[in-house]
Amino acid sequence: MKTIAIDMDGVLADVYAQFIEMHFAETGERLSQKDMIGLTEGEAFPHLLKHVNSKGFFETAPLITGARKVVEEIAKVYKVFIVSAATEFPLSLGEKHLWLSKHFPFITWQQMVFCGSKEIINTDIMIDDHFKNLDYFKGKTYLFTQPHNENANPKNHERVNSWEELKEILL
Amino acid sequence: MKTIAIDMDGVLADVYAQFIEMHFAETGERLSQKDMIGLTEGEAFPHLLKHVNSKGFFETAPLITGARKVVEEIAKVYKVFIVSAATEFPLSLGEKHLWLSKHFPFITWQQMVFCGSKEIINTDIMIDDHFKNLDYFKGKTYLFTQPHNENANPKNHERVNSWEELKEILL
Repeated sequence: MKTIAIDMDGVLADVYAQFIEMHFAETGERLSQKDMIGLTEGEAFPHLLKHVNSKGFFETAPLITGARKVVEEIAKVYKVFIVSAATEFPLSLGEKHLWLSKHFPFITWQQMVFCGSKEIINTDIMIDDHFKNLDYFKGKTYLFTQPHNENANPKNHERVNSWEELKEILL
Repeated sequence: MKTIAIDMDGVLADVYAQFIEMHFAETGERLSQKDMIGLTEGEAFPHLLKHVNSKGFFETAPLITGARKVVEEIAKVYKVFIVSAATEFPLSLGEKHLWLSKHFPFITWQQMVFCGSKEIINTDIMIDDHFKNLDYFKGKTYLFTQPHNENANPKNHERVNSWEELKEILL
């Protein structure tokens, strides 16, 4: 059974929707995802650090369309690990555990990895929205499209735009 | 720079001392570590699950002798990652982060990995007290002596009894 490392933020969890919601709650201004194409997350969301360190940010993040259903199917054919950069924001650790247990009840604690750098992760496949995680990975890599990487050349990674696309490729 | 994965419980954190302390606080009975040789941790500590799920268990665990000083020296010569099985006990995630930040301030969030299974961890060296983590690891392995593994044949792993020994071997 092939092993696969799946990122959380920007791949399973819709952090853009969450940032936009928190920005609206705080300022009354409704930001548009289209205006963020090509910007880093820090450029798109000036209050990013404040928000990711807020209680509830990760626990209440909405799901990316299709993620739950497709990951459940993938998990029957691949050995799935959810590998998430989390140690930078200590509050996120418990919240990400709760979020995964709620939305992906078929993912066990054995399949969760909360790390900082992903450079010592060794699986056959990695799905991530950040080049910093994919670039030094040795296996097959899929770049999940998010506004911050939308204009970038995917280099040696295969770009995927949705979980429907991943389903067709992987299953 | 070679990479090295260092376990927490039973390698950096003295969980036996912590279990003995909590058992004493609860029952008034002082258990002896010598009587635990060859027993699994579950056999040695009948209230193990209750204790590891108690607030403070991981945050206030004492250090294994020499761990801090030797890891600080090792970290100058190796790329150190602290890789700890933590996702089984959600409360431990935040507490282990605090504990590492307090006792090992030179370890950054980039170097922390909190996981369930360690099977997708890929470093040159692994130091751990459990066969279940070392047995499928592909690099060089050191079995750190703890009462639960003290009578066991170390198989293809190199047994080490202290951080002083590890210092002599690795530096």
